[in-house]
Amino acid sequence: MMNAPARGFTAEEFQARTQRAQALMAAQSLAGILLTTEPELAYFSGFQTLFWQSPTRPWFMFIPASGKPIAIIPEIGAELMRHSWLDDIRTWSAPAPSDDGISLLTDLLLPFATRGQKIGMMKGHETYLRMPLGDWERLISALPDLEIEDATGLVQGLRMVKSDAEIEKIAHICAVGSAAFSAVPSFIHQGQPLEEVFREFRRTAIGLGADNTPYLVGAADQGGYADVISPPTTRPLRAGDVLMLDTGCIWDGYYCDFDRNWAIGHADDAARRAYDVLWRATQAGIEAARPGNTCRDLFTTMSKVISEIDPSGGDIGRLGHGLGLQLTEQPSHAAFDNTVLKENMVLTIEPSLSYGDGHMMVHEENIVVRPSGGHLLTKRAEAELPVV
Amino acid sequence: MMNAPARGFTAEEFQARTQRAQALMAAQSLAGILLTTEPELAYFSGFQTLFWQSPTRPWFMFIPASGKPIAIIPEIGAELMRHSWLDDIRTWSAPAPSDDGISLLTDLLLPFATRGQKIGMMKGHETYLRMPLGDWERLISALPDLEIEDATGLVQGLRMVKSDAEIEKIAHICAVGSAAFSAVPSFIHQGQPLEEVFREFRRTAIGLGADNTPYLVGAADQGGYADVISPPTTRPLRAGDVLMLDTGCIWDGYYCDFDRNWAIGHADDAARRAYDVLWRATQAGIEAARPGNTCRDLFTTMSKVISEIDPSGGDIGRLGHGLGLQLTEQPSHAAFDNTVLKENMVLTIEPSLSYGDGHMMVHEENIVVRPSGGHLLTKRAEAELPVV
Repeated sequence: MMNAPARGFTAEEFQARTQRAQALMAAQSLAGILLTTEPELAYFSGFQTLFWQSPTRPWFMFIPASGKPIAIIPEIGAELMRHSWLDDIRTWSAPAPSDDGISLLTDLLLPFATRGQKIGMMKGHETYLRMPLGDWERLISALPDLEIEDATGLVQGLRMVKSDAEIEKIAHICAVGSAAFSAVPSFIHQGQPLEEVFREFRRTAIGLGADNTPYLVGAADQGGYADVISPPTTRPLRAGDVLMLDTGCIWDGYYCDFDRNWAIGHADDAARRAYDVLWRATQAGIEAARPGNTCRDLFTTMSKVISEIDPSGGDIGRLGHGLGLQLTEQPSHAAFDNTVLKENMVLTIEPSLSYGDGHMMVHEENIVVRPSGGHLLTKRAEAELPVV
Repeated sequence: MMNAPARGFTAEEFQARTQRAQALMAAQSLAGILLTTEPELAYFSGFQTLFWQSPTRPWFMFIPASGKPIAIIPEIGAELMRHSWLDDIRTWSAPAPSDDGISLLTDLLLPFATRGQKIGMMKGHETYLRMPLGDWERLISALPDLEIEDATGLVQGLRMVKSDAEIEKIAHICAVGSAAFSAVPSFIHQGQPLEEVFREFRRTAIGLGADNTPYLVGAADQGGYADVISPPTTRPLRAGDVLMLDTGCIWDGYYCDFDRNWAIGHADDAARRAYDVLWRATQAGIEAARPGNTCRDLFTTMSKVISEIDPSGGDIGRLGHGLGLQLTEQPSHAAFDNTVLKENMVLTIEPSLSYGDGHMMVHEENIVVRPSGGHLLTKRAEAELPVV
């Protein structure tokens, strides 16, 4: 078990986050922001429960122009929410298919509609509406004068730059993940079904201090793998396989997201070369992760190295992303993303490439943006493909 | 490690599910159903990936009036989807904020709009729209003539009644969960922080064969607990505590969802009495889970026993629910739910009550509806509050 920092955040931190949001809202003439999704409720209140896994009940939060956020939540969450810094907690006995919070929301929002004020919602890229679409349609038809504007950029912009306390949590779970990856050679062996490798990795990561390992994907095949999002099979590890494990472990609500590759028994030249190119692409990405550079710059920098053996850069669509309360967050290291890097952004550096006969390989590290470039939160992968 | 059934389903099973949907669609004059959510894509295709945890990419499936479902998905998922029974897989290189599948969907749906045909979407209770609201608004404004009808009841009605192969999977994960709960007395002790109890439970369940333990909530406090959705604290177990653990373990995409209670060192009369009432309420619920009875009947039957000490029946809003590809599914054992039970529905029986000074207690078992009543998939909880 690794030593962990304190759980939770101070009320001052939630207040500072809320006030930063409110300053941006004022600049955008928003009288409030209505939120429906787990990471946003956690960001502004610290409310953390696995109960989100049940689709039965919607949860809402409203950020007013000033003062504390307002929770509009099922009664089952009231006791937990009362431990947060919030004062105004409005509840109903959910599930109630005929009125799952809609009349509470209507009461809350009607004065804004009447006054002709604008409300923000997250409607953009990487968001979704975590409530029934039919309820949403009923809500907006009950408030025909309510003007709704996209607040995706505002909220994502805040969440991208992490506080010291957030970075401490992410650094901790990255350290736990690094220790779990370091242990992999001690528990894998030829003949072991891939699903047992997954099982042992999860038990190891939890034993080292992860709250859980919600995300674990990977693959193993002769000379390389062809897919990076599949669940494990019962296929046994064989000499000549390249094994990849990619994990999102979680601690106190914050994720790591990185991977490691191993050759089983021996490695062929093509796999060694792919590994070397990706290791150097990662290195170039880490060094380029300085304030002032853009995500597009990171993409271009890594693509240049990748193009030594793969001009396409693979079809994954991006070479890394933000990280924090979600396994993947804004921004994206992609040609389309001109987000300017700022100090204290936490990012994955994740180059991938195609090689040989339908093989692909992915590398991934987690960093925090510092003036001198990316500061590693993960223990850097070995410079040459490790043979186990 | 417990012996597991085979993973996956036959193509015949997916075909049968699709044809049952298509028969209901014909009766409702639907020319197709557009789906955006993980359990529905899994139900009709077997597509299973933890990649859903990343909010970056939307995934779509369209069930036409006849023939196989059509996948409209990010290129990163194409390799995995090609292993399913589907033939028509349309992909784009996501993420692409300017067009994340929207032009592919427009091309697919335009002929239906032109012909004035109706399309189904899941817009009702316990659903959400897993795509950006802004993209949804763009899609429907590009298809002003498309008539969209709620298909929630149609899809949920199909998913509620499980096939033999689905029941086998749920029975397996319930057996794994039961074995993990049986092991709890062997690893808990006074002075142990609750978060260590959680960690050890997860490692045990995975070691016994769970793919993961995505859901684990619980509480422990003197004479009883007050909240059932919180993450664990570092508070050590003490003599006089009532400890509750409630888990959703998963195997091959299917969940168990049940809990167990223990007294630490000794139990007081109030906790013993609450346990006894809930055990009998559960028993009454299991016996009433016969085809022809309604969910409301189950609620009433359990409420009658609960009212021996708690006239309110607690504020959780329902006394159980469906179970399968999701931790909680339709139907709900609540006064508002008149769903008629059918053979092979898999349900939780989950009575709860309030007692003493702000304490609550929850019991939960998982059953499959059989002509003679609920058939237990979980190993029945002990009839008296176990003291550890």
